[in-house]
Amino acid sequence: MPMTLETLDQRLALRAAASPDESYTAKLIARGVEKCAQKLGEEATEAVIAAVSRDKPELVKESADLLYHLLVLLRASGVALDDVMAELDARTAQSGLAEKASRKDNS
Amino acid sequence: MPMTLETLDQRLALRAAASPDESYTAKLIARGVEKCAQKLGEEATEAVIAAVSRDKPELVKESADLLYHLLVLLRASGVALDDVMAELDARTAQSGLAEKASRKDNS
Amino acid sequence: MPMTLETLDQRLALRAAASPDESYTAKLIARGVEKCAQKLGEEATEAVIAAVSRDKPELVKESADLLYHLLVLLRASGVALDDVMAELDARTAQSGLAEKASRKDNS
Amino acid sequence: MPMTLETLDQRLALRAAASPDESYTAKLIARGVEKCAQKLGEEATEAVIAAVSRDKPELVKESADLLYHLLVLLRASGVALDDVMAELDARTAQSGLAEKASRKDNS
Repeated sequence: MPMTLETLDQRLALRAAASPDESYTAKLIARGVEKCAQKLGEEATEAVIAAVSRDKPELVKESADLLYHLLVLLRASGVALDDVMAELDARTAQSGLAEKASRKDNS
Repeated sequence: MPMTLETLDQRLALRAAASPDESYTAKLIARGVEKCAQKLGEEATEAVIAAVSRDKPELVKESADLLYHLLVLLRASGVALDDVMAELDARTAQSGLAEKASRKDNS
Repeated sequence: MPMTLETLDQRLALRAAASPDESYTAKLIARGVEKCAQKLGEEATEAVIAAVSRDKPELVKESADLLYHLLVLLRASGVALDDVMAELDARTAQSGLAEKASRKDNS
Repeated sequence: MPMTLETLDQRLALRAAASPDESYTAKLIARGVEKCAQKLGEEATEAVIAAVSRDKPELVKESADLLYHLLVLLRASGVALDDVMAELDARTAQSGLAEKASRKDNS
């Protein structure tokens, strides 16, 4: 079975329930939304640097970090991953032309 | 069937094959890795702001934007989403304690 | 007389007092702290990309944009530039060795 | 005499000339442009979070960090602060109306 964000989110849920002393995930969530948001911003910067450096192995790692920290931030914020995926589904189920017309910012 | 990043990536592949005049996705990829990386950075900042503002509906939207633009960046960079998901699987298949021990940066 | 951030801040003060229809600065501040913070994040990403791309003329422009938008954010937030410069003075007046010892994060 | 970026840059020049073992600044520059760019991105995220959190003392500190790390990045990149300040001078010496007309992106 291929790995999905849903599977990752289930693994995170298990860790989030552990003690902050035992789990990095639990520790991060215990530090609050601001700290989780800061980590997301850091990982995004690192993904940007890897991409612009044309370092593919690094981009794989930083993208994994970014996805992980996005799910941690959603969990710390009380937002369900399902809601994010439903939003993506609704947006991209439309045709390409409709896509273009619906975007406010095409720059 | 629940929406997954893999499904999103397949939809992006169709759009990326369209003309840049017809598809925002194709247009963005045609502008190059730097432009795609810039958009990723922008969306990460917006997700951070939504989270810190405790604005859940906005965080849902910005998280969707972030995931979309990450997949666009991976495509523009010639990196397979599968490689990123395999990295996440390998990292999180281990136990929470192993997780903690393996992280270089626990801050 | 060389250009300083203080001079820039004085010019921004004049513009901030204008109508949002007449001044980009006034318009941005009128849109609020979140919008100004978003612009700062965007400009930082662009400076990062210019630096990693080794594009010096672009780094000059993006650094100017970053400084400008930092001053706009401070103004929108009601924080005096003087306080930031005093903080920098206090930190860097110490010796290099003291500097190293005082940093919480040396990574 | 008030603190200026020029004074800060002169202090950084002294530190950059020290051993990486003795100076955080020298150490950071020795790690290269990518590392300096990463720190800039991190500090920008932290300034964004402080601003959106309406935490003024924290915004003062994070703004100081951001300015410091911008100057480090410029130095690591071989870009003169003077060039950045001259760019800012040229842009903001014009009138507010000219400012508005000259901006490509008014959003």
